[in-house]
Amino acid sequence: MVKQVRAARTRQALVLAAAEAFAHDGYAGASLPAISRRAGVSAGALHFHFPSKDALAGEIESVAARRVEELAERCRSSDGSALGVLVAAIRHLVVAFATDPVVRAGFALGGDLSRDGGATVLDRWHGWVREVVGQAQRTGELADGVSPDGVAVAVVAATVGFEALGSRDRDWLSKERVVEFWACLLPRLSAVPGHDPADVPEGGAVGDRDAGSSLAGL
Amino acid sequence: MVKQVRAARTRQALVLAAAEAFAHDGYAGASLPAISRRAGVSAGALHFHFPSKDALAGEIESVAARRVEELAERCRSSDGSALGVLVAAIRHLVVAFATDPVVRAGFALGGDLSRDGGATVLDRWHGWVREVVGQAQRTGELADGVSPDGVAVAVVAATVGFEALGSRDRDWLSKERVVEFWACLLPRLSAVPGHDPADVPEGGAVGDRDAGSSLAGL
Repeated sequence: MVKQVRAARTRQALVLAAAEAFAHDGYAGASLPAISRRAGVSAGALHFHFPSKDALAGEIESVAARRVEELAERCRSSDGSALGVLVAAIRHLVVAFATDPVVRAGFALGGDLSRDGGATVLDRWHGWVREVVGQAQRTGELADGVSPDGVAVAVVAATVGFEALGSRDRDWLSKERVVEFWACLLPRLSAVPGHDPADVPEGGAVGDRDAGSSLAGL
Repeated sequence: MVKQVRAARTRQALVLAAAEAFAHDGYAGASLPAISRRAGVSAGALHFHFPSKDALAGEIESVAARRVEELAERCRSSDGSALGVLVAAIRHLVVAFATDPVVRAGFALGGDLSRDGGATVLDRWHGWVREVVGQAQRTGELADGVSPDGVAVAVVAATVGFEALGSRDRDWLSKERVVEFWACLLPRLSAVPGHDPADVPEGGAVGDRDAGSSLAGL
């Protein structure tokens, strides 16, 4: 049992160290020796858990996809409108870019040309956004002439762009940037004049307490 | 003179081949031998013009920055509103992502973690967008409560995201995606009810004739 706990911890440490390396240096730039050093485990232990760099990247992508889905689903528990749920999910995601290297690496790997992988995380996020925007349309929240697919494309392109810009310059992920962006866009999609989906109170708690508290001021 | 023309052609061929390699495989994945083969020149000729991969990337970034600026400035010659100029520039830029490997590579290099370079093209594009949005504000085109900095951030993040998503899946750069996105966002920022900046006729001609004609139906 102790052995299993230790193995799980080693695995977690490797995933975190690899995420930091991928998010900082890109897939091609990250080296396995540097990752095992950063995780504080031997090269042998790394190879025991992950036979290749590609296997590590695949694990990060599936952990990140799960976290993004959980983070987004928790926002549904708010009793807000569908657009409010979307705004809350985007806020939490951008905070996760700044605080969770696994989520950031998952997005970065999706756009990393040096790896021939799927874009698991992006596809999952796109699917979720499309579903929530579709719900907003069904409940009459979208103003006339607003294309649900257009909104979903805009949200996904902008979040991918935020992650890419934030990896160069953390200032892009600052609170002000996020507030500016959503203050500008989403209230204008609402069918209800004067209704600002950004005013909807935060949804369920996010996993990361720091992330939660840094959202409070948004 | 003939020698100078030949040298200029070799240089151009190298820039194009490197742009295709960087845009396809990323900075780390692109190899100099493959680039010189693709350009149809010897390794010696490559090294004569560009002493390193970094020098090639730097040249691509400055050519791309110039092209983006020229493309954007040509849109000013239209007599449309500032928001109309912005819509036209974004359309031309997204067409350039699909048709001009140098522009695409310039954007991709700006977000490529495997290279410690500046983000020349992104900075230049961000500066231009900020200026045009500022002009829209000064002439009273922006609706109350629309933050000019917020609009600029949204436009830059979304264009960077489009390029990143388009490098994986060309479908993201398709005409429909572009139309959906801008049909959704920009008309909603206008202070003039019923005024749709996307209706503004195309500005000056774009350099690429194909790009120009493929815009006609947007």
